[in-house]
Amino acid sequence: MSSRDREYMTLALRLAAKGRGSTSPNPMVGALVVTRGRIVGQGSHRKAGGPHAEVIALSQAGSRAKGGTLYVTLEPCSHLKKRTPPCVPLVMASGVRRVVVAMVDPNPQVKGNGVAQLTRAGIRVDVGCCEAEATQLNQAYLHWVKTGRPFTILKAGMTLDGQIATASGESQWITDEVSRQQAHRLRADVDAILVGIGTVLRDNPQLTARVTDDPPRTTGRQPLRIVVDSRLRIPLKAKVLEHQQTAHTLIATTAAASARKVERLRKRGIDVLVLPKAGGHVNLPVLWARLGQLGVTTVLVEGGSDLNAAVLQAGLPQRLMCYVAPLLLGGQDAKGLFGGRSPRRLRSAVPLKNVRIEPVGRDMLIQADFETQ
Amino acid sequence: MSSRDREYMTLALRLAAKGRGSTSPNPMVGALVVTRGRIVGQGSHRKAGGPHAEVIALSQAGSRAKGGTLYVTLEPCSHLKKRTPPCVPLVMASGVRRVVVAMVDPNPQVKGNGVAQLTRAGIRVDVGCCEAEATQLNQAYLHWVKTGRPFTILKAGMTLDGQIATASGESQWITDEVSRQQAHRLRADVDAILVGIGTVLRDNPQLTARVTDDPPRTTGRQPLRIVVDSRLRIPLKAKVLEHQQTAHTLIATTAAASARKVERLRKRGIDVLVLPKAGGHVNLPVLWARLGQLGVTTVLVEGGSDLNAAVLQAGLPQRLMCYVAPLLLGGQDAKGLFGGRSPRRLRSAVPLKNVRIEPVGRDMLIQADFETQ
Repeated sequence: MSSRDREYMTLALRLAAKGRGSTSPNPMVGALVVTRGRIVGQGSHRKAGGPHAEVIALSQAGSRAKGGTLYVTLEPCSHLKKRTPPCVPLVMASGVRRVVVAMVDPNPQVKGNGVAQLTRAGIRVDVGCCEAEATQLNQAYLHWVKTGRPFTILKAGMTLDGQIATASGESQWITDEVSRQQAHRLRADVDAILVGIGTVLRDNPQLTARVTDDPPRTTGRQPLRIVVDSRLRIPLKAKVLEHQQTAHTLIATTAAASARKVERLRKRGIDVLVLPKAGGHVNLPVLWARLGQLGVTTVLVEGGSDLNAAVLQAGLPQRLMCYVAPLLLGGQDAKGLFGGRSPRRLRSAVPLKNVRIEPVGRDMLIQADFETQ
Repeated sequence: MSSRDREYMTLALRLAAKGRGSTSPNPMVGALVVTRGRIVGQGSHRKAGGPHAEVIALSQAGSRAKGGTLYVTLEPCSHLKKRTPPCVPLVMASGVRRVVVAMVDPNPQVKGNGVAQLTRAGIRVDVGCCEAEATQLNQAYLHWVKTGRPFTILKAGMTLDGQIATASGESQWITDEVSRQQAHRLRADVDAILVGIGTVLRDNPQLTARVTDDPPRTTGRQPLRIVVDSRLRIPLKAKVLEHQQTAHTLIATTAAASARKVERLRKRGIDVLVLPKAGGHVNLPVLWARLGQLGVTTVLVEGGSDLNAAVLQAGLPQRLMCYVAPLLLGGQDAKGLFGGRSPRRLRSAVPLKNVRIEPVGRDMLIQADFETQ
């Protein structure tokens, strides 16, 4: 592959990124058709059920695709079990002579079949151009396809000494306006937001993605709102149960829940999952598997200390995002990022990798990945 | 002042910095003599009691100083109450026509007198060249002169979630080798290291500045080792009490201490300060004032959670230095950076400014200044 190939693939990746926050459970994909050094078609996948990137690019190119090269950030699909026809036959019919693919689609229904079919049809296929960038772009989708669980981001706003609330539970606001705005944009990019019942009882949040706080404007697509509530203590007037037409809510509970309350909530259109217990609480790995089945590819955990600790202990998070304010709260009784009990030995501490830091307004954003992704 | 002046003063500041860690309680000072565009003398103050920077530079220049310019990073001294003669008469006798001074010395015995005497002698004096850089260089000295208390750095090694030890007190080692080496070099730059008795009982540290851990090598000058121990519980075999010939130890206690133990320690050459109590513990502001009187211009607090909290609550620190490891410990029972009780409201959190971050080996160093310096 040439440096020219990398340039075109970089453009295709940029097209792909336009679908951020709207393609789930599909991956983001971008495509470009280049004939005799000219871009004759480009496309990006914008929405599950909508046309694929390569279909848009090829139809834009029309007969000009003949003899050209198709650049596509993910292997074209070959399977029929979905809402749109497979792309491979369209690529064959388009007359392109070569296809450059950033990465193979790990989806078991594709997984090299698309490349194989194109090759059999006599089209030259090059795989692996800008593969690292493409993998990074669809990190969440790839995790979900491989594990069946949503890519999990543990997000918190904390002081420099790691506190997320005072002993009395006051947490609004540790971080500044700029951080909170960025956190709202992050909400718009994920499939679901998850909190514990403690947060609902204390702060009564809406859990919607709002681009400005005052006046509250909501973005088009709202993430699923998930409350982990083993005894179904949620008040029927909680804000997180409002506006089901724009933002859906799912409650994860256990057999300890009142069957009548489950019915009442379901009648209001709220999903209630009755899940097995683990240590008196909702079994989180089971919940995560169910979320994966429901097509939730990314979940943003905005827990209090106790939920964060349970999620950490279950080994569920892939990424940590901490908005750190230039403040010290102090106090052994303040609420730290993780509640529960500490491991007895230092060697049981959870290692992180790829720590990266950027300034966000007055605060800083520290991001890191968990070692076991 | 010209850009040429700034260049020479920058060189003088670099000379001054050569005294880092050895001039206390004197400031770091550098000087340069320039005659007809040539540097004819340079000097830096290296040790209290040793020659001043301008004396070295002028004696190096000799008769070549005539008609030249003296660049000096701090106002030349005019007073007699010290071990070396005042510099102002030497400057007058040298024949320099002009003196460029980065900043006035706030020491009440100088404070503009040096500049005034030179001016009266018909020498042109320009003050304020690179003043910000000079202020930064001698930040600790300036704080000590102005407040009578040592410049206080609160240093800790912690996990990303703000924990400095497990619930059982295990803290060795959260940070990696590179961070710990850097922390040892930091110890060599301060006048004193201060810990609580809890740290002595748990970790039995030597509290010396060691450049490598294995085999332990000590640097030339050792900081004063201070233990805050209100009931004088320190074991007579504690490592911090060893090697008084190379590293002196001071214990701050209260009337709760056994008079006999005080005597035993003093006979071993250890300083024991019996100080008033505040809330059952050593009154820290009183200790800080005493340290200032003893010529301690900088103190590095390496406390456990409880001492850190007491120092914070007393409003004593000017700088925070956290070596943050890419680890999560978790647990409400783990030891956080600050123990004690958290303030009831978020608005009582302590604000920090000038947060700066740099990678140190596998860890990162987060530094910040307290708002009220």
